[in-house]
Amino acid sequence: MVKGIMAAKPWNTVAIIGVGLLGGSVGLALHARSLAGRIVGIGRNADRLRKAKKLGAVTEGTTNLAQGVKDADLVVVCTPIDDVVRQVRDVRQHCPIGAIITDVASTKTSIVTALDNHSAASSAKIAPAFFIGSHPIAGSDKTGVENSRADMFVDRAVVVTPQTGDPKPKVAAIEKLWKSLGARVFRMTPREHDEAVAAISHLPHAIASVLAAMTPAKYLPLVAGGWLDTTRVAAGDVDLWRQILLDNRLAVAQSMHEFTVGIQALRNALAKKDSDEVVRVLQAGKKNRDAVGN
Amino acid sequence: MVKGIMAAKPWNTVAIIGVGLLGGSVGLALHARSLAGRIVGIGRNADRLRKAKKLGAVTEGTTNLAQGVKDADLVVVCTPIDDVVRQVRDVRQHCPIGAIITDVASTKTSIVTALDNHSAASSAKIAPAFFIGSHPIAGSDKTGVENSRADMFVDRAVVVTPQTGDPKPKVAAIEKLWKSLGARVFRMTPREHDEAVAAISHLPHAIASVLAAMTPAKYLPLVAGGWLDTTRVAAGDVDLWRQILLDNRLAVAQSMHEFTVGIQALRNALAKKDSDEVVRVLQAGKKNRDAVGN
Repeated sequence: MVKGIMAAKPWNTVAIIGVGLLGGSVGLALHARSLAGRIVGIGRNADRLRKAKKLGAVTEGTTNLAQGVKDADLVVVCTPIDDVVRQVRDVRQHCPIGAIITDVASTKTSIVTALDNHSAASSAKIAPAFFIGSHPIAGSDKTGVENSRADMFVDRAVVVTPQTGDPKPKVAAIEKLWKSLGARVFRMTPREHDEAVAAISHLPHAIASVLAAMTPAKYLPLVAGGWLDTTRVAAGDVDLWRQILLDNRLAVAQSMHEFTVGIQALRNALAKKDSDEVVRVLQAGKKNRDAVGN
Repeated sequence: MVKGIMAAKPWNTVAIIGVGLLGGSVGLALHARSLAGRIVGIGRNADRLRKAKKLGAVTEGTTNLAQGVKDADLVVVCTPIDDVVRQVRDVRQHCPIGAIITDVASTKTSIVTALDNHSAASSAKIAPAFFIGSHPIAGSDKTGVENSRADMFVDRAVVVTPQTGDPKPKVAAIEKLWKSLGARVFRMTPREHDEAVAAISHLPHAIASVLAAMTPAKYLPLVAGGWLDTTRVAAGDVDLWRQILLDNRLAVAQSMHEFTVGIQALRNALAKKDSDEVVRVLQAGKKNRDAVGN
């Protein structure tokens, strides 16, 4: 064995709680880029943890959270939204002082509010591990660690939502984490984030679901590209999306309202045969769509 | 040259008016399957006709409609919606008695009503060439003969909308045409057709355009799969879609209304934190979407 100069890895021990599509992809990406010494997968199902290890997403697995996070300098909570707060509170009880905890949930306001660092730090019972929320806007309609990819975050947007008063080095470390996995990182307040994803992710999902749900079965044999594209995300996981839509219901409802106003305006333009207005909407939509590409 | 037994081709001369994406694909498909003797492309632009010939979409081209259709046993009008009626009337003046004329337009009621075969046949001025409307539910957000494909209609739905009293052999011939190009053929009245495509094609397009148009520019760097899929068709040709939405405005407005009711119901469910109702909509959407595949 050659002992040479070993560059220290950015993270000694990363714990990933919930090794599914996103958790597995975080592990694979850290591993592929040699960014972590140990990658500890934590979950309820030992079989799935073994699978994650076999796939190279984690270097070891445990069903014991306290055990899994005790040496971690970074903990990434990748459980469903409704579980994040409870998990982070658990992690705070067992991880080292100074560890950073983040998550990957699609909503941020309720989670960040519940996990306030200031009150956590001033509470005698809880170690001062900082929670800094993240949302990688990535994923797939597929689920499970078997669909994880080391390049899941490459060129994807990740929004980081620190709290007022969070130490700059901790925030910088989380932003660097996502950049090191290839992502484009944006910093927002939790509320700004939730309004943005309501518009670009949660509203599209609601639209796709309603459109797919209302299509009469007798018409399904006729569908082509337009229906297939516009409804594609409606195939997504029902329970995941229930949690997202309910958790972000205020911002989603506001987006749905604005969208309804837009639909009504186009409908009025059609009723009046207002060709100019129809063209205006089609052109505005095409301009934004063309600006983004595929 | 070996003179053997030559199987007669189903069509001696097919004239295609408007050799763009769909017209070119009809030509390529007929050619690839050896279904036509001559394939005459008719258009206003001689350069584009030469290109179509070079690509194998037509065997000859002409800018003279009267000349182009004079020997045709089948004429396929592939011009934009707003031009179809005028073109078919022209064709009727110049094509052989007994020729069949069809089209590929995305709406049928206004076109078929204007081109009534019964009154055309009883008019002394017009040769009894039958117009039988078709709508291949196929296409692409790309346009032009250079994007034509011989397999454009394979496994795609084509709706044929005959008129009451049309001779059965003529209707059967048009249905056979599309089947011979690989399509799944459905027969509907023009009104049934327009209601169906309002639901599965025109409404999705309207939704995609409104959603893309209303997305704030500052959020565009954040978009991922959901927004990209749901808005994809908004990149389509503005003038084509202006014609489609305005021509089918009654059925589209009705579909938009039903969709708005669905969106409002989901919004109310979110406001009331009615988890069961949210799940019901998500499940109904997933069921229809999963039933169709990709």
